[in-house]
Amino acid sequence: MATKEPKKKNSGRKIPGPTNPMVTPLLTDQYQFTMAYAYWKAGKHQERAVFDLYFRKNPFGGEYTVFAGLEECVRFIANFKLTEDQIDYIKDNLSVSCEEGFLDYLRGIDCSDVEVYALPEGSVVFAKVPLLRVEGPLAIVQLLETPFINLVNYASLVSTNAARHRFVAGKSKTLLEFGLRRAQGPDGGIGASKYSYIGGFDATSNVAAGMLFGIPLRGTHSHAFVSSYMSLDEIKDKALRKKDGSSTCQDFVSLVGDWLRKIEGSDSLRGNSADTNKSELAALTSYALAFPDNFLALVDTYDVMRSGVPNFCAVALALSDLGRYKAIGIRLDSGDLAYLSCEIRKLFCSIEKEFGLPGFGKMSITASNDLNEETIDALNKQGHQIDAYGIGTYLVTCYAQAALGVVFKLVEINNKPRIKLSEAVSKVTIPCKKRIYRLYGKEGYALVDIMTGEDEPPPKVGERILCRHPFRESKRAYVVPQKIEELLRCYCAGNSDKNEEILPPLKDIRERCIQQLEQVRPDHMRRLNPTPYKVSVSAKLYDFIHFLWVNEAPVGELR
Amino acid sequence: MATKEPKKKNSGRKIPGPTNPMVTPLLTDQYQFTMAYAYWKAGKHQERAVFDLYFRKNPFGGEYTVFAGLEECVRFIANFKLTEDQIDYIKDNLSVSCEEGFLDYLRGIDCSDVEVYALPEGSVVFAKVPLLRVEGPLAIVQLLETPFINLVNYASLVSTNAARHRFVAGKSKTLLEFGLRRAQGPDGGIGASKYSYIGGFDATSNVAAGMLFGIPLRGTHSHAFVSSYMSLDEIKDKALRKKDGSSTCQDFVSLVGDWLRKIEGSDSLRGNSADTNKSELAALTSYALAFPDNFLALVDTYDVMRSGVPNFCAVALALSDLGRYKAIGIRLDSGDLAYLSCEIRKLFCSIEKEFGLPGFGKMSITASNDLNEETIDALNKQGHQIDAYGIGTYLVTCYAQAALGVVFKLVEINNKPRIKLSEAVSKVTIPCKKRIYRLYGKEGYALVDIMTGEDEPPPKVGERILCRHPFRESKRAYVVPQKIEELLRCYCAGNSDKNEEILPPLKDIRERCIQQLEQVRPDHMRRLNPTPYKVSVSAKLYDFIHFLWVNEAPVGELR
Repeated sequence: MATKEPKKKNSGRKIPGPTNPMVTPLLTDQYQFTMAYAYWKAGKHQERAVFDLYFRKNPFGGEYTVFAGLEECVRFIANFKLTEDQIDYIKDNLSVSCEEGFLDYLRGIDCSDVEVYALPEGSVVFAKVPLLRVEGPLAIVQLLETPFINLVNYASLVSTNAARHRFVAGKSKTLLEFGLRRAQGPDGGIGASKYSYIGGFDATSNVAAGMLFGIPLRGTHSHAFVSSYMSLDEIKDKALRKKDGSSTCQDFVSLVGDWLRKIEGSDSLRGNSADTNKSELAALTSYALAFPDNFLALVDTYDVMRSGVPNFCAVALALSDLGRYKAIGIRLDSGDLAYLSCEIRKLFCSIEKEFGLPGFGKMSITASNDLNEETIDALNKQGHQIDAYGIGTYLVTCYAQAALGVVFKLVEINNKPRIKLSEAVSKVTIPCKKRIYRLYGKEGYALVDIMTGEDEPPPKVGERILCRHPFRESKRAYVVPQKIEELLRCYCAGNSDKNEEILPPLKDIRERCIQQLEQVRPDHMRRLNPTPYKVSVSAKLYDFIHFLWVNEAPVGELR
Repeated sequence: MATKEPKKKNSGRKIPGPTNPMVTPLLTDQYQFTMAYAYWKAGKHQERAVFDLYFRKNPFGGEYTVFAGLEECVRFIANFKLTEDQIDYIKDNLSVSCEEGFLDYLRGIDCSDVEVYALPEGSVVFAKVPLLRVEGPLAIVQLLETPFINLVNYASLVSTNAARHRFVAGKSKTLLEFGLRRAQGPDGGIGASKYSYIGGFDATSNVAAGMLFGIPLRGTHSHAFVSSYMSLDEIKDKALRKKDGSSTCQDFVSLVGDWLRKIEGSDSLRGNSADTNKSELAALTSYALAFPDNFLALVDTYDVMRSGVPNFCAVALALSDLGRYKAIGIRLDSGDLAYLSCEIRKLFCSIEKEFGLPGFGKMSITASNDLNEETIDALNKQGHQIDAYGIGTYLVTCYAQAALGVVFKLVEINNKPRIKLSEAVSKVTIPCKKRIYRLYGKEGYALVDIMTGEDEPPPKVGERILCRHPFRESKRAYVVPQKIEELLRCYCAGNSDKNEEILPPLKDIRERCIQQLEQVRPDHMRRLNPTPYKVSVSAKLYDFIHFLWVNEAPVGELR
């Protein structure tokens, strides 16, 4: 994989700007600029600060998360520069007392001195572990807080949601992202397509995302297409050339009509009287004339079993007459998907047998009506014959949990570790510039993530190490790792002499995600009551956290 | 209001493109292009089609919705044009059999022949009523389906969510949108800022949205700012000029220290021993030196009552010494907001009295910890002293319901009305090109919306009219309207000779929304069990719907 080839920094590569040109240094909270000004006024703006970006709780009641959004963060800071218009706007909106010297400072800043360490995009990650560590001049890194969180939050949430849908659907099913119309704004849609693909989806309906990222496209037709037809007379050009080009059928409409009569009289319908809608038949015939090579029809505009499916079969059989064009299948967008898919499969198989058409029984059945993890799980329990799911609203809006709580916390300044206390223990930060290791057990599964101080000796394969819960004294365990992976890699070297990772292509990120999910022990993945994955700190870091904590907290007083 | 001045079309105004440059004709579902191709192949692409855009159910369990997103739709189609790159991409991805003639057709299309009728942006709307009616060549209007839904869906959802938060918070409170970091992608954030403002919010933290739309900005500092300070020694430049410029205090830090000692010994603390954190004191002092005119401090980094508030008061009192700089107030981001706000108010009032500082007791208290409709409602019930709410996650991601179910349905083609049936009655479409009227009663409140066929005579003030439920025979009522408003206005005239509405500035849209909400009867607005607002059809349209329905539906067969 490309990510495994570290590359010297400043090797002349030009990193493009963020996918969405609206991602500029102004896409941040006003308080980042007021703080930058106050730091500058106090002469603190150049102090070297270290911030960790992480979340406190895995989403969707699960015990894992897919990390995504890194490439956009790197593209953002590689091109970080304020324009004169933006500086004018800040001047007019910050404070009447804002000094000109600060505006000059803003004119000069970029992120060339900012270091970014991160897990590779597409990694499986867990709560409390830093996904990114950002080091640089205090005022500049402060400005990055909001855009970094924005770019990682939704990206990771959707990727995780996609991975969860893949988990419940199973590896053999085709998963299609159909959410553009329901997404939260235009690039809610574009982001959803990209990050669903990373999380294991196969294709999208979103043409813009297809063009931007090279994601495969899928799409057929809608109910409006069907109801826009009134009768077969509307089809003017009825000719269809055979697939091999050898001759042309001059009246494909009649050929479809012949097949419809044969189906209506066939054993395959098993006594179901067909009463097919003729405007639907016209629409499907017309669609087949446009797409004889990949005919996939929506069959639920009027009545699935008595109209849509017989009409579809007539067209598909007519196509197969013409040098074996192979219809792809049907899409269902309403009704009892489990029951209907089984009935349709039986009919397809019966037609395969009755008319001697190998493969007809295996045609694809796509379902697409407000699907989500729960409905797919319910379909699995009922039994169904669905091959592909088109998933929209619940996937792209992350309906079950519409936000991930990513935070960006100061952990060190001028080499001095900082802690942020809170009455809620879960909100206490883990101080210090840290290293993170993932320790694997004998069966190849990840056992625990451990954070250590930057200068501690790394854990060693085969050597026992104590892993402590960061906040709960009694929770600790010895581990003898069989494999150790250091998690944070350098993506922006700043003025250090570190090598920078290359940003891998989207397909590699997707591949990494799929591989990583396979290394997670199945009990961490299950939908109900998954086992928590352990995230720990070294004994030394544990002691230091609690030393700082006691030092900073005021002594309470009961009265 | 600007929307009330209709303007002749083609008057030379140039409508800018969509706010997000990623909104292009390719931001649509692949099936819109496959359908366009099939229409073109069948020679149907120029047929005149009428589509209605509407939703079936108001969001958040409510009975009203704020319509937003119209301006972006108009800007989109005013600039609708495919580039050669985009056409190449479509060619490569549509079908192997895609004919060159279709690509030539795509090269030529724009939306100059598309008519758009809509309610003004910021209107209060209800389920089933068309928000937009789009008329034009079938293939082109089909391509608009996905982007129009995308642009209206989230916009209307967030505006509605904002209006609901305003309703529960009350008119006197300041509402701040703080959601950028939690939004679903970059323009999830930018859209949230714009549409929250329409729905009645006062300001945003999002600098980019402030610059794009002229929305007022708000922001102070974060916990990281506080913990980045270690001690008062870090403050190098301790001088602060008096507000009137008459002289300069050379050591503002000492002045703050003096005040802190006075507070620690004062009656105002009422026996609470202060044990203030000195790094926090340094941070607040430093922030005041940067913003002496608008000092607003976050006070919960260590301990609100024993550290943050006394530190804040010391700084605020020192500021007031220097020619009456007036501190603005404090922000609380954790803890028991109702209790703490009351305690802080008492302390502020007590200090006002003890130190003779008029106005000190009325300083602003802002709260900002995961707030939503429920928590604000609970705060109201408990009693609190909060003046301003900063709302993020729940507002911008519409956490309580992350999507609105906007649909886009064919209602007429070549002057022939079309209906789409469904086993779910709520999914049956209302056919025909329609007019919509809002009928008002004696008290000035809206009573009912009524849809009629395009050519029916309009309802008249003072004349009794029968309003029928579109699908339920027994539900009907006579209404004698005191005022009648026709709802759909022309925003794009296409090749017709209609006048086009001007797109009003954002402030006017917000003003319209606030006015409209005041015309909704309070029982439709309440959070629990609101009264449904009636949406009806004329008797004539009712009969026609049911005539078409019976005609199109296959006769069932019980076996």
